[in-house]
Parts: sequence; structure tokens; C-alpha cells
Amino acid sequence: MIDLRSDTVTKPTLEMRKAAYDAEVGDDVYREDKTVLKLEETAAELLGKESALFVTSGTQGNQIAVLTHCRPGDEIILESESHIFYYESGAVAALAGVQTRTIQGKRGMMEPYDVEAAIRGEDQHFPETGLICLENTHNRAGGAVIPSANMKAIYEIASKYSVPVHLDGARLFNAAASKQSSIQSFTKYTDTVQVCLSKGLGAPIGSILAGPKPFIERARKWRKRLGGGLRQVGIIAAPGLVALTQMTDRLIEDHIHAKLLAENLHEMNGIQVVNQVETNIVVIDVKGLGLTAEEYISLLKEKGILAVTFGPSLVRFVTHFDVTEEDLLHTVKLMRTIN
Amino acid sequence: MIDLRSDTVTKPTLEMRKAAYDAEVGDDVYREDKTVLKLEETAAELLGKESALFVTSGTQGNQIAVLTHCRPGDEIILESESHIFYYESGAVAALAGVQTRTIQGKRGMMEPYDVEAAIRGEDQHFPETGLICLENTHNRAGGAVIPSANMKAIYEIASKYSVPVHLDGARLFNAAASKQSSIQSFTKYTDTVQVCLSKGLGAPIGSILAGPKPFIERARKWRKRLGGGLRQVGIIAAPGLVALTQMTDRLIEDHIHAKLLAENLHEMNGIQVVNQVETNIVVIDVKGLGLTAEEYISLLKEKGILAVTFGPSLVRFVTHFDVTEEDLLHTVKLMRTIN
Amino acid sequence: MIDLRSDTVTKPTLEMRKAAYDAEVGDDVYREDKTVLKLEETAAELLGKESALFVTSGTQGNQIAVLTHCRPGDEIILESESHIFYYESGAVAALAGVQTRTIQGKRGMMEPYDVEAAIRGEDQHFPETGLICLENTHNRAGGAVIPSANMKAIYEIASKYSVPVHLDGARLFNAAASKQSSIQSFTKYTDTVQVCLSKGLGAPIGSILAGPKPFIERARKWRKRLGGGLRQVGIIAAPGLVALTQMTDRLIEDHIHAKLLAENLHEMNGIQVVNQVETNIVVIDVKGLGLTAEEYISLLKEKGILAVTFGPSLVRFVTHFDVTEEDLLHTVKLMRTIN
Amino acid sequence: MIDLRSDTVTKPTLEMRKAAYDAEVGDDVYREDKTVLKLEETAAELLGKESALFVTSGTQGNQIAVLTHCRPGDEIILESESHIFYYESGAVAALAGVQTRTIQGKRGMMEPYDVEAAIRGEDQHFPETGLICLENTHNRAGGAVIPSANMKAIYEIASKYSVPVHLDGARLFNAAASKQSSIQSFTKYTDTVQVCLSKGLGAPIGSILAGPKPFIERARKWRKRLGGGLRQVGIIAAPGLVALTQMTDRLIEDHIHAKLLAENLHEMNGIQVVNQVETNIVVIDVKGLGLTAEEYISLLKEKGILAVTFGPSLVRFVTHFDVTEEDLLHTVKLMRTIN
Repeated sequence: MIDLRSDTVTKPTLEMRKAAYDAEVGDDVYREDKTVLKLEETAAELLGKESALFVTSGTQGNQIAVLTHCRPGDEIILESESHIFYYESGAVAALAGVQTRTIQGKRGMMEPYDVEAAIRGEDQHFPETGLICLENTHNRAGGAVIPSANMKAIYEIASKYSVPVHLDGARLFNAAASKQSSIQSFTKYTDTVQVCLSKGLGAPIGSILAGPKPFIERARKWRKRLGGGLRQVGIIAAPGLVALTQMTDRLIEDHIHAKLLAENLHEMNGIQVVNQVETNIVVIDVKGLGLTAEEYISLLKEKGILAVTFGPSLVRFVTHFDVTEEDLLHTVKLMRTIN
Repeated sequence: MIDLRSDTVTKPTLEMRKAAYDAEVGDDVYREDKTVLKLEETAAELLGKESALFVTSGTQGNQIAVLTHCRPGDEIILESESHIFYYESGAVAALAGVQTRTIQGKRGMMEPYDVEAAIRGEDQHFPETGLICLENTHNRAGGAVIPSANMKAIYEIASKYSVPVHLDGARLFNAAASKQSSIQSFTKYTDTVQVCLSKGLGAPIGSILAGPKPFIERARKWRKRLGGGLRQVGIIAAPGLVALTQMTDRLIEDHIHAKLLAENLHEMNGIQVVNQVETNIVVIDVKGLGLTAEEYISLLKEKGILAVTFGPSLVRFVTHFDVTEEDLLHTVKLMRTIN
Repeated sequence: MIDLRSDTVTKPTLEMRKAAYDAEVGDDVYREDKTVLKLEETAAELLGKESALFVTSGTQGNQIAVLTHCRPGDEIILESESHIFYYESGAVAALAGVQTRTIQGKRGMMEPYDVEAAIRGEDQHFPETGLICLENTHNRAGGAVIPSANMKAIYEIASKYSVPVHLDGARLFNAAASKQSSIQSFTKYTDTVQVCLSKGLGAPIGSILAGPKPFIERARKWRKRLGGGLRQVGIIAAPGLVALTQMTDRLIEDHIHAKLLAENLHEMNGIQVVNQVETNIVVIDVKGLGLTAEEYISLLKEKGILAVTFGPSLVRFVTHFDVTEEDLLHTVKLMRTIN
Repeated sequence: MIDLRSDTVTKPTLEMRKAAYDAEVGDDVYREDKTVLKLEETAAELLGKESALFVTSGTQGNQIAVLTHCRPGDEIILESESHIFYYESGAVAALAGVQTRTIQGKRGMMEPYDVEAAIRGEDQHFPETGLICLENTHNRAGGAVIPSANMKAIYEIASKYSVPVHLDGARLFNAAASKQSSIQSFTKYTDTVQVCLSKGLGAPIGSILAGPKPFIERARKWRKRLGGGLRQVGIIAAPGLVALTQMTDRLIEDHIHAKLLAENLHEMNGIQVVNQVETNIVVIDVKGLGLTAEEYISLLKEKGILAVTFGPSLVRFVTHFDVTEEDLLHTVKLMRTIN
């Protein structure tokens, strides 16, 4: 099987397994697991934030961020197909009691003007705007990179109204790789950020939430409430440290692979590549084949290729560490046989 | 002062005051206030529902509806400028823990296709679609009437997916008056409905939430939690009964007044009427005068006219029982002096 | 029927009805209802607080207090049979997301030592103690008056730990009447207080929440979310003003009546008065008659007397404005016939 | 350092590390991690439940149980010092919106009579009783085993009122070991159960939530909301499987060690063992030494022994896999020097 469903399917490398095996551990509820302490310190420094917290998933990092930034009755501004809104099972309302104010972006990018217009004024009929959330790269926009200039503009508006900004940076390392810029060129325009170790970076489990020290202290209690306070967490922090320190440079390969795939698909009958491929995601529309996304995916599966639906006639492919150029060329060959 | 801020400012009529004075009362927590029982029975029959509940405001009726229909983690579909989303302080998230999935309507009307596309499928990343909310007439769409055909189409989709429909009918009697059709020609396409007694109908306080009997029984407990379980409620139910039985026919006058106002404003320099006036609301854009809405409203106030902002350069006027044709002509005259 | 179920059943006096009829009203969402403004100002002054807010019920006042004082994940300390815990349908958890830490009191009075021991320390396993709630008089303790000395002791502990104190003073005027002391001799040991206008004071609807001005401003938004933002509220604020200014002195009569009832019951076969009658509540145990509370209440009802259950074999009687000495002596006579 | 703070400090065995290194993994969000599937299947069978779910901590398992069983506004009945109430940061109220009705137990055991009396009747003032939670062994009762006869009695009451029962069995294997009975002799009296792999069983991370299949399916979505939906979870499920299948028999050693410690402490001046040692927990009162718990713990720490406070003058010791008989005898020797 060639698995192009998501970069979450990457399996830990041998080095990660070794790191888990050898990990120095302790009880992290007592803050005595040296491996996770090192991971958190490394991550904070890399992301240019005072403090960092290991969490078990991107969703957990985002939810804790919202719970820590906001109060029930607040409203958060976020893109209309952002992960926090679209793929987190309504948790921001269920757990944090915040209302989602969605703005339709262009390629995942919200217009600063629209963000400013959505910030609520003083009136007892209005919720208070408690947080602005960005997502970079933006998954449902096909892995689009949100330019740091856009982030800067929104951050300045947010500052003007004293509203904090959180960045869902599940695939932020892909953005940095794509733009050949530092991770901090993005994180400097956000108060808090969540980055995943388990997507393109290949760690088996885990994400990082980073931000100001007092924020992270309060976040720690919310993590405990969500059941994310772990014990000998070094076992997974160790592979996470490998991911964070050794795997970011290789993301560019995934991008090259995704472009290769997209180029080959562009010329294919009945198939339309709908996103501008900047990172490791390719989205196609199969309407031209007279098939639904689900039907197309079934046909792919029979041929040994896995992908996911992204809409009634949209199919998403994600390149990652466990997929080679050969796999992709083979994929293309097999896709040609569907028509 | 000519008060065109809202139809909520209507003062109780003499008959309503008399009704309050004479009201037979009891303790409604024990279900012994005969006046409110009669009001609820009358309202249920009028609205074509099994059962009805008196609540202290439209917001309370809507919130109780959402709390009773949904569970935390559900998503509700509603128009992007609907009252429940826009003007209820984020309460659906704060109290009921539901996520708002907003759809941009045309004149307040959501396309049935868009509603269907927004209903979530089975996937652990997705909230469950727990409710569809409509608003008729639609306040921020300038008092637009949502045609019953649109309501029917959405209701059929909802039924197909077993999702209930709630109607925020704060101004539903205006819709019925405007279309010269029965109130039930609208309520038959909704599972539950909230109507206000305190807007164009002139009652001092109160709304009605109506629906199936078991729904209303569960709603009663949520009303108690919100502090809406009252005692000798007949004092306000009595004016409400006057409103419900004697004031609906006169709404058409407010519509005639609103059209009169709009016609006079159409020809006015620098002012643009932005809504198609179907009921009692007129919205103008004052950009052409080089003024913000707030500045324009200040100028109006100096001249003895009250209106509210509806956007950076938008101003809303609402006609109602306490405003006469003369008041409106006088208003027009004064508005001409602002330029 | 002689109705001894609750002092909530009191019907508005003629003067209250007149006040409603004549009330100067306005739209309170715009803060223009002069009657409610006057009621709030009067109440604030009387209670010795900066600001006051009219709410539709005691439950609403208490819930808004908790919502405004606390954040989800906080813990509130309160007596194990207090109204907020026992009779508000679990709303503090459902709406405010706070955990209830109950302390068993003696006659409704929590030991200051127990309160201090219940305040949580710093540890991520612990909720933060966000509020201490008192109730005076204490309903389930049989209308017991909590001495101001006890309130003072708890208030001092609360201050030491920077935890605010809220007083559910639904029947606080009964406490003041019983002790022949001012209402402020109690309210000075609490940050915020809720008092009911609709119990012994006889108003048809309404309560007051009072506290510091910024607190009341934030409370106003929570009131809006709960649907307690009303329009021409003067209709009920006017009777409330009569209640607040003219009815407090007469509460002592209810106490005399309750004591009269209790004395007569003391000598009655099979019946045990279980509370020390300080205010307007008498609780009896009917176990000695071999009856359950529900059976006893049915028998009473057949004879024209209404009371409520207060436990498997406990029955509660409440004296109030609509019950005379003759009614009580007649009640006693009829009760003698049950054995 | 001899670490007697908790059995959570146990470090993974070499076999566990090997299991992590060799684990067959997949993406568990797609249900493709064979190791966690095997762990869940094994756990379900062992616990006598239809289905099981891997969660990252005991707190997460308990919280998901409450979220899945209850709705906001429900009340849950649980012991007044149970972990869910005492040590989970108020999460049941913050996340699930349920009110905690605590019952003071004897050695952690709630009287069935008290439980039945706490179940709420039908009345709009009352929350609905949504769940009864038990804890076995009971941590704050000093590791007391709740007899299965007590669980049975409560389970029968619960069934009578159609209220489900959840068991916080973080240390249930200790209960089974202590009574030399099967784990199912306890779990058969509960609808759902949570057991920890990371306490006495020594796994680095993880717990199991087990129950009926439809319950576990709904629980999976709540786990996702809390951020507990992981990817290549086999890395930690593999050590968990070792813990579950190979480490339960050895718990009896911890109990023997705890008794040994307690016996030695009984005769020690100024120290009182306050619990009847049944499992791996020993609680002492140091009041007799004129010390607070914190002072005593500091002195212990200087000598190389770690323990935790359990009250102002109470200190808890927990025996576990990483502590030997020699360690304990050495501990006793050092404790004798404090006086």
C-alpha cells in the first residue's frame, strides 16, 4: 500500500525507537522527566517563546490554548475551514464555551480588514473577542503557506485591540521549509503557537504548545483537566526530540514530491488539481471522471493507493517521509488507469 | 423624541396595564398561575404546536431551545448575521457548548443547498449537527421575510438528516402580516419556535417558546436553571395575552409606515436605503454624506430622532406602535436638513 | 385553601398592582426604564453596595453571581443543603462549570474552621477556590438565621485567601427582622448579595443582585446571556419597589405566626418540630404518625391545607403575608384530627 | 533517593522498553495501530466488558466516562474524597457541566443507604442523577479495598433507578490482589471502569476505559475532543500490554512491603499509622512529633526519602515495583532518627 492519506501515518524512525528505548524518564507530573524537560526547553528556544508544554496531540494543544486564553462567552476569530473549527469535533464550544466567528479566507489567508471588522465592540449583545487563531500551513487550503506579512498585519490589528493571537502550526515547519525562512519569522507574530511532532516530522505521538511563561503555567492545569498530565513521558518525548532536531530539514523533500505528483496529475484526463502546491498536500477534483470522491478513493484502494476525501468530489494526497519518489511515480501510473 | 431605535421600545397600552392590574395570578413554579397557563395555551394553539412556555425574552427562548435540542459538542447551522449568532453575547457556546456553523444568506435566507452541504457526516473529527436555526423576519437583513417555501425546503432537508429545526420568530407576526398569510404557514416548517410579545406587539416583557410537549417539559427545567422560573407571572402574562390576541393585526400599519419612510429617503441626497423594505425596518447607508453611522445618529439625536447603528456607516430605523405617520414625515423633514 | 407551601405564593398587594398600573417605563436594555433604575438605586443603598441589578428570580441572581465571580474549573464552597447546591438544578455546574465543595453546617451555619480547611492550595490536581457562598436565612435549616458573627469570621478567612463571598439572601430580610438588626449588619460581610422581592416581601416577580460597580457591569452581560435583559421592566420593578420599601417591617408578623404554629405543634401526638423556629419556617417530622411526608401532605390537602415535603418524613410550613393568625389556628385544629 | 511518593513514579521495565522498541505501529485515528487494538481487546476481555479504549491517563479515562454518561445539569454521586472529586482540578464541572454530590464514606466506602438517599427525585428544582462513581482501591482512604459486596449493593440500587455506575479503578488490580479474587469480581458491579497501567503495573503512560461497545464508540469522540486521539500509539500501548499481562501478579509484593513498613511505624514514637493497610499505601500522622506534614517531608527528603503530604499533618507512602524490602527497612531506620 502507498499511503498518501496524511503525514500523520509516518512511522517512527529507527533512531526514534532507539531514543524511546534509551530515554531517561521520570514522573512529569512532578516535573522530573528530564527528557520532556529537554524537549520543552528545546522547543521553546526554537519557537522563540519563553516556555513550552508537551501535549499529546495538535487538537490538545489548540484546545488548551483556547481554554487558557479565553473565558466562556468569548468569541474567537478563525478561518472558516481552519482545523480548530472544522476538524476538532466542536471542542472549542464544548470545552471552552467560546463562539466561533469564521472568516472565509483566500487560500487559508484571512484578510486583515475582515479580521478587524469582526472584532466586537462594547455592547452587552456582543461576546467579547477573546482570541484570533491562524493556521499555517493551512490544511484545507491545500497546505497553503500563510505569508508572514499577513500574519504580521493581523498581529498588529490584534495588538491594537488587545486580543491575543494563537497559531495552529501543526505543519508550521512545512511553511518555514517552503519559504526557506526560519520558524521564528512566523512565530514572532503570534502570542502562542502549537506545532506537531507527529506529522511530517515523524514522531509517533505529540505536539508542543509554546508561549509566555505564565500562560504555560496556567495551560499546564488545563492539560491536567484534559487528562494530558502524563508520567514517564520521556518514552515519547525522546522520539519527539529527534523529530524536532533532526527531521525539519527533510520536509523540503515532501514538497518536491508533492509538486512532482501535482505536475503529473495536471495533464491527466478528468482530474483537476485544485490547489497551488506549496508544501506537501495535493488536492484534486475528480468530477471530470464522473465519480464522487468516495468512489475514486475506493478505486485507488483496490490498486494499492490510499487517499482521503476532502469534499464531495475532492481527494487529498499528502506526501511524507514514508513515501518515495518511486511510490509517487507508481501512483501516477496507476491513477492513469482510472478513467 | 421620535424613537425609531427598535420596536422593543413600545410601551404597554392602557389595556395592557389594565390587564396587569386585574390579572388573576398564582405561583407558576407550581403551575398555578391561570393567566400564564391561558397565555401558553393560546400561544400553542395559535402557533400550531402542542405546548408553549412563557419566557422573559427572545434571547431566553432561543437559548432554552438550543439547550434543550442539543448536547455540548453539537454544531448548529444558522445564518451568519442571525440574532442567535450575532446578538446573544455568544451564549449558545457559553451555555449550551454548541459550535456555530454560519452560512451567509441572501436577504437573511440560507440556500437549502448550502444548509445540506453544512450538515456533518460521521467522522470523529466532526461535531454532530444538532440543530438548524432560522430567523423570520430577519433583523440584520432589514426585516426581510423568509418565504415559507425556503423554510419548507430546509425543513425537508433537516428531516432527511433527522436534524431538528428551530425558528427564531421574534418578529414572525411581521412576516405573517407582510405576506398576509397565517402564522402557521411558517411554523409548520419548524419543530420549535420562539415569538416575542414585546416587540411590535407591544407587551412590556416576554416571549413564547413553543414545540412538542416532551420538548417543552425539558425546556421548563432549563428555564429554571437560567432563572426564568417565575412566581406571580400573570402580572406580565396578562399584557402578553393582550399583545398576542389583539395586536397582531395592526403590524401592517408599521410596514406601511416603514415603506413611507423608505420612499422619502430614497430621493434624499447622500443617503441610500440598503434594504428592500418588507416589514417594519429601514436600513440606510450614510457614507454618501461623508459621515459614520455614529456621527449621523448623534446629529439625528440633536434633532430629536433616535436610531441605532447597524454597521460602520449603516443606520437602522424601526417603525412601531408608538410612532405615527406624522412622526415619520417630521423625521424625513429633519433628515433633509442634515447634509 | 390555607397555603403554607412557601412565601413565594404571596400575591401582590393592591398597592403593588396600582404601582404596576402607574409605572413609568422605558426600555431597560437601553437603561431607560426609570422605575427599575430607581429600584436598583434604592436596593444598592439599602444593601450598602455600590450597584444593584434587577433579576427575575433568586436562582437567576445566584447563577449570575457565580458566573461573574468564577471561571470554569473553579470550586465554590457552600453548605451541603444550601439552595444553590440543592435546589438550582445543578445550574452552577451546567452554566458556570464550577465544582461544588459542600460543607455540612449546623443549623445552616458552616464552621469557619471547615471553610478554611476546604480552601484549596496550589497544586495542579486542585481546582482553585473561586467563591464562598452563604445562605441567610437558611431554608433547609428551617429558616435559621446565620449570625453575623459567623459571617464575619468566614469573610475574614475569605479575605485572607483573596476568595470573594456571595450571600444568597433570598430571605435576608427575615434574618434582619428576626435579629432586629439592620440588613447591612449582614451584607457588610459579603462582596455580593442576592435578595428576593417575591418571597415574604410579596412582589410578584424579581430579585436584586448587588455588589461592586464593575462586578454589576459584568453581571449585566451574563444576565443578557441568560435571557434576563428585559424591556419595559418597570411593570414589575414598581411592585418590587413597594415590596422593598414598605414590606420589610411586617416580616416579624410571619415569624410570630410561625412560632405560634410551632408551639401548637410541639404538643401534638406523633409530630415533632425539628427546627428551632427563628423566622417564618416550621419543619415537622411525621414519622411518629407512621406516615410518609407525602401521605401526610395528601391528608392535609384533603382538609384544605397546603404544605411541601422536606424529606422522606419531613414537612415544611411557611408563614407569609396571605396567612392570618386565624388561618394558623384553624390549621392546628385540622392537624389534630390526623392521627 | 527512596521514592515513596506514589506508584506513578515506577519506571518502565527493560521488557517494556523492548516492547516499545519493537512495537508494530499504525495510525490509531484510522484504527490501524495493531498494538493498541490488541491492548484494548485484551483489556476488554480481562475486565469482562464488551469494548475498551486506551487513554493517556486515569484522569482522562474518568473524565471521558463522565462526559459520555452525562449531560450538563446532571448530578453525579461520589465519595467526598474520591479522586474524581478531589484530585481532578474540578474537571467534571468544567468539562462535563455536572454537579458533584459527595457522600462521606467509611474507609472510602459509601453506605448504600446514603447513595439511595442522594438519588434525586423528579422536580424541576433538582438536577437529574446521571452517574454514581466508585473508587477501588480508594486512594485517600489509604488504599482501602471497597468490598465487592458493597459495590454489588450500590449497583443494585443504581439499576433500580436506572443510573449507571462508573468505577475509577486506577488501582483496581491492587484490590483484586489484596482480596485474592479476580478483577471481574469487582467489574461485574459497574457499567464502565477505568484502570491505570501506569501505577503499580509500571507502564510509562496510559489507562484503559472499558464498557459497552456503543458507550466506547461515543467515548472515542470525547477522547478526540480532549486531544487524546493519538497516532502511532503502539509505542506506549506495547509497554501497557506488558503491564497488563505480566505485572498484576506482583502487586501482592507491594502490599507485603506496605504492611512491613506500617508494622515498623506502629511502634515509632510520635507517629501514628492512620489507615488499615490493605494494599500499597501507608498514611501516618506526624502531629505527635510536633511537626506539620510539610516539615516532616522536608526532613525525610534531607535523608533521601520522598513522600507526599496527605493533609496538614498527614504523610502518605506508597510502595511499588522500584522499592525493595531493603529500601523500606532503610527508610524505617532513617525515620527513627527524626524525633
